Amino acid sequence: MLLKKQEIKELDNRYRALFITALSGYKSANLIGTCDHAKNTNLAIFSSIFHIGSHPPLLGMITRPHSVSRHTLENILQTKYYTINYVNKSIYQQAHQTSACYDKETSEFQAVGLTEQWQKDFTAPFVKESRIQLGMKLREHQSLTINNTELVIGEITYINIKDDIVNEDGYVAIEQAESIAISSLDTYHNTELLSHLSYAKPN
Amino acid sequence: MLLKKQEIKELDNRYRALFITALSGYKSANLIGTCDHAKNTNLAIFSSIFHIGSHPPLLGMITRPHSVSRHTLENILQTKYYTINYVNKSIYQQAHQTSACYDKETSEFQAVGLTEQWQKDFTAPFVKESRIQLGMKLREHQSLTINNTELVIGEITYINIKDDIVNEDGYVAIEQAESIAISSLDTYHNTELLSHLSYAKPN
Repeated sequence: MLLKKQEIKELDNRYRALFITALSGYKSANLIGTCDHAKNTNLAIFSSIFHIGSHPPLLGMITRPHSVSRHTLENILQTKYYTINYVNKSIYQQAHQTSACYDKETSEFQAVGLTEQWQKDFTAPFVKESRIQLGMKLREHQSLTINNTELVIGEITYINIKDDIVNEDGYVAIEQAESIAISSLDTYHNTELLSHLSYAKPN
Repeated sequence: MLLKKQEIKELDNRYRALFITALSGYKSANLIGTCDHAKNTNLAIFSSIFHIGSHPPLLGMITRPHSVSRHTLENILQTKYYTINYVNKSIYQQAHQTSACYDKETSEFQAVGLTEQWQKDFTAPFVKESRIQLGMKLREHQSLTINNTELVIGEITYINIKDDIVNEDGYVAIEQAESIAISSLDTYHNTELLSHLSYAKPN
């Protein structure tokens, strides 16, 4: 299949959404936990988390301000804090269900049957069933005028992770934690370790 | 393992690089093909490609201007075009080897044994061994002042993909193409389809 600019533009909208989203490849499946000032909680699945840097530890994400994920963005801007919780094989169907368009008054934690976990020194709710939990502080956000999405950049300020999946050298065996990968909009994948390769040098 | 901001800051640099990069989860393994005005080619593995939107079809990537990937960025800024080529199981070791610090005069295509493929109407080289090839036009780039990385946004203007991995609804079976996922800096994963879930609705 060979498509150029004009042919891509002429694709059916629903087809294009699945097709183009697939072309960004594998992505992490994460649940973003937030709350407003009154501690009303929200939980939403995201596949748009990406690495920006390790020192300071920064992760970016892309959101659409008028989509189903708007409550997540509103809460992050209000409280400046959010959590990133890895989706594992045991909870991926519940995680997917958070993408339904619930009212602002409904907490997706209750709606899908996942458990809020609060830490006394962190403002946003974690997902108890998640084996890798990150607490994030909002550092920056900006509108990408090219398509009216929002780029949110946060710093990892809290890490709670099972000891037995962290190797001596710092590698985190996310596959041992049965972490799930997403492709396209709605497709979930198991993964299996193929290889750790060493630092590459010429020759 | 529970780490807060100060403890993260105090981690050994090499440990932190593996650890924090692992915490962004699964990422796609892609080879970025570029050339300069004189058609000197460059090929570099990236795991920082992410989806920004489907209409227009936009992908972002994060680069470090002074790292081994600087030739990629220089070429993109010079010609405005680049290619994204999916890494599959048959070529992941060669793909990894492109991360070695070769001179500007050395083409990684030759150095690692992958084949340049040119299309008459596209300025940058594709990787012949790749089963999913995207041609990209630079749309925007900006420095992220928070950590001096560069955000590059490109539009997909050319898609060459094996017909038998594109479903009727637009889903691209990247796992059937033996596409590889990366975690942390240097770890490669096979994947296996778990499930396509349907569009979620409340109740």
